[in-house]
Amino acid sequence: MATKEQMEKVKDIVVKLRYLECMDNIIYYDRWNNCPKDGFDYEGKVGAYLTELSNEKLTSKETKELVESLEGETAFDSDTDKGMVRYLIGKYKEAVQIPASLQGELNQANADGQLAWGKCYEADDFESFKPVLKKQFDLQEKIATAINPDEKPYQVLVNRFDKDYRLEEIDAILAKIKDAVCKILNAVREEQSKIDDSILECEADHDTVLRIVKKAQEILGLDKDKSTLFEIHHPVCVCTGPRDSRPSTNCDELIHAILAVVHETGHGLYNYNANDEVAESGLWGGIEGAMHESQSRFYENHVGRTREFWENLYPYLQQEVPKYKEISLDTFLAALNKVKPGLIRLKADELTNTLHIIIRYEIEKEYFDGKLTVDTIEEAWNRKYQEYLGFTPKNHQEGILQDVHWASGCVGYFQGYALGDAYAAQFAHKLLTDCPDAFEKLEKGDSSAIGNWLKEHIHQYGQTYSAREMLKKATGEELNTDYYIEYLKEKYLH
Amino acid sequence: MATKEQMEKVKDIVVKLRYLECMDNIIYYDRWNNCPKDGFDYEGKVGAYLTELSNEKLTSKETKELVESLEGETAFDSDTDKGMVRYLIGKYKEAVQIPASLQGELNQANADGQLAWGKCYEADDFESFKPVLKKQFDLQEKIATAINPDEKPYQVLVNRFDKDYRLEEIDAILAKIKDAVCKILNAVREEQSKIDDSILECEADHDTVLRIVKKAQEILGLDKDKSTLFEIHHPVCVCTGPRDSRPSTNCDELIHAILAVVHETGHGLYNYNANDEVAESGLWGGIEGAMHESQSRFYENHVGRTREFWENLYPYLQQEVPKYKEISLDTFLAALNKVKPGLIRLKADELTNTLHIIIRYEIEKEYFDGKLTVDTIEEAWNRKYQEYLGFTPKNHQEGILQDVHWASGCVGYFQGYALGDAYAAQFAHKLLTDCPDAFEKLEKGDSSAIGNWLKEHIHQYGQTYSAREMLKKATGEELNTDYYIEYLKEKYLH
Repeated sequence: MATKEQMEKVKDIVVKLRYLECMDNIIYYDRWNNCPKDGFDYEGKVGAYLTELSNEKLTSKETKELVESLEGETAFDSDTDKGMVRYLIGKYKEAVQIPASLQGELNQANADGQLAWGKCYEADDFESFKPVLKKQFDLQEKIATAINPDEKPYQVLVNRFDKDYRLEEIDAILAKIKDAVCKILNAVREEQSKIDDSILECEADHDTVLRIVKKAQEILGLDKDKSTLFEIHHPVCVCTGPRDSRPSTNCDELIHAILAVVHETGHGLYNYNANDEVAESGLWGGIEGAMHESQSRFYENHVGRTREFWENLYPYLQQEVPKYKEISLDTFLAALNKVKPGLIRLKADELTNTLHIIIRYEIEKEYFDGKLTVDTIEEAWNRKYQEYLGFTPKNHQEGILQDVHWASGCVGYFQGYALGDAYAAQFAHKLLTDCPDAFEKLEKGDSSAIGNWLKEHIHQYGQTYSAREMLKKATGEELNTDYYIEYLKEKYLH
Repeated sequence: MATKEQMEKVKDIVVKLRYLECMDNIIYYDRWNNCPKDGFDYEGKVGAYLTELSNEKLTSKETKELVESLEGETAFDSDTDKGMVRYLIGKYKEAVQIPASLQGELNQANADGQLAWGKCYEADDFESFKPVLKKQFDLQEKIATAINPDEKPYQVLVNRFDKDYRLEEIDAILAKIKDAVCKILNAVREEQSKIDDSILECEADHDTVLRIVKKAQEILGLDKDKSTLFEIHHPVCVCTGPRDSRPSTNCDELIHAILAVVHETGHGLYNYNANDEVAESGLWGGIEGAMHESQSRFYENHVGRTREFWENLYPYLQQEVPKYKEISLDTFLAALNKVKPGLIRLKADELTNTLHIIIRYEIEKEYFDGKLTVDTIEEAWNRKYQEYLGFTPKNHQEGILQDVHWASGCVGYFQGYALGDAYAAQFAHKLLTDCPDAFEKLEKGDSSAIGNWLKEHIHQYGQTYSAREMLKKATGEELNTDYYIEYLKEKYLH
């Protein structure tokens, strides 16, 4: 049994690690919103110092002894205590396994890679991007080996984000999903191609877009006292405290801006809804990877693409953007939910989005298995796009150069979106079992039944449990992709 | 002679202390600009942790030994080395002298005091404010005693901001200034009262005010890549890095907004203009107290109230605010520079501003000398206002309750404004000796001669020197208030 004294020490360290993490997030937010251009360099140094402080804390003699005294311990006073210990041990291991110099090299490569990607993307120049990609993948492999030399590097990289999945299991899940999605796609492709989705394109000035996305957040029940909306090229949600979430959007295209803000608001709600005990323990903020994406995907797809949601937002949209006065909600919803396979992931519909994710996962896996090199990776990419989606990129921009993820160090993350989709459908099913009228209430403008269910069954626990445990606790089952496949069939083949 | 190894250690600590200070400033900025209401509490905790980290670093065995090995050392390789050692020893002493618990108590009292002041001010309730003020002054006295029990508490408090002045010296300087200002005031009072300054009041919407203050910053040569403008009730300049200054303003009243932004821009330029060596050593940002205020006052009064500055801004103002098309620049400048004694410091003209400062300094001094209590302080305040300015407050709001400084822990700071005015005039005199055509250039829209002189002679050195040393280095003289008095006479009695 972990002692009270041990747990006080654990809590003290966890809470302080979160303070440092939050400072880093505040800097991240500051860079995108306030920092003048010439201030970036110094903020980068401050951020590196925060990493150093965090590392010092984790690798201190005190932490080492504490972790060693608690490893293997299974009896705890509460789930929160257990969660704190798991959190600390996880962070400790990373800190002692990854040499600081290697972590520093990676941070630099991520920053450099992001810049290089921007230039190569603009110039549609994959040749110049190859050494950047090679460097990044080499570093990722070094990190994987540092963490666990006895494991396949890609297994380690995936587990950095989705801690409790073996590759074989992910392979099987994704294969099942891919198979179902491809079948549905083949069945609806022709019929769906007839839907006119050009109505989704519309001119709306910046302030109008902002007003509409704020209205969307209001319908979703986002608490203004706990959130700040901001704008950024690639939307994210910055979590800067247990009661402070900052979802963002990109206001260039109205409908995209709405779906993006709904997605990020899902992250935001998950972040700020921890109960007081969890918030004080430092475990607030939600489980990284598939579980966090399940909340954003839930809001994006199971809420943000539904008639019930738009019954509330559409009148407002019609008022703000006169062209929609001429267009019925039915017509609008058909366009919004149109299946439209294509080459660009960020423009993908709900159904084929998963195929984009699977392609990236498969390519990462093949690369780290030694089956691909930076010289053959593009050919693999293009072949898969032709096979799964029916298109071959005409240039690098609409192909291998479209995502910044790899260049900026995000390797081993993509499967989380696909797993998150499966989680989201399982949650949606359970929510409807528990609260059959949740969506009738939403139709009347009240999203609280949905929000409360998620808060009670998932959000309040923050990072107390592993993703797998949380899923089981909330739905009573292990991951069952049938819910996701049934949901897709119901939606597209009804 | 300080060794290379010692200096490397000193630099490492100073640079890291500045990182932590900057993080705290970024949080401060974030609270006023981005943080949602419910996020304040957590950011407060993060801030307290940063203070803890800073304190840990300063009171560590390593720092202690380093400081002890360097105390009394006078031979250094460079002025920057000397400056770093002085900086570190100053911070070290504060950290070891002030118990962490007392510092924590003060931080809490400052936060509570600020809130209490807001309520008492709104309710015009000085009676309820008395215990708040008493608590704050008691804590300040404890801190002074902790730092140096053998010194008068007020001497210690003043030296926390203006490090190298004895009270007797400040007394003599302020007495001389007060005497001169009162004489000028008596001589011009009647004549000045005839000037119509109602033209300064005007309706201007928020965006118009913002455009005009940005134009003012442009004329002052503020580098957009190194600065971010923001809005706040009481304008400040937040310094978040060696190349990152954030001046603010309050857009409620146009002319006040302009003068405030010119003042804060002075702080901002001082902050970001350190040379590379000084920036890398952590000594960037300028010398606290009188020297920093001399730069803001210089810009506010010696630039921002001049014909040469307004020759550039006034046409823009006339274009943005049509009512000024009917008003000549002469008429406008007379109103802007009108001597108008009154009760409110923040609305004071350039001449009588100093009297407000002196009143606060005298009251602080009398209080800590035991001559005043919170029960007699208001009577003293009112008596001095009648004596120096010719008015007695009709309520607490326009009297003792007007400033938030004391409630929020800013005790021992006011003299810096008055000394800063004297410094500013001395700098202005030297600038004109070195560059006789600096203001002719400004009249043509080119502020670079002024900016470059300040950068070359003051800004580039950051905190390398003490205020006294810096003044001597830049002007060749010790503080000579004759320049300030001559400047005022020239301006008002010509």
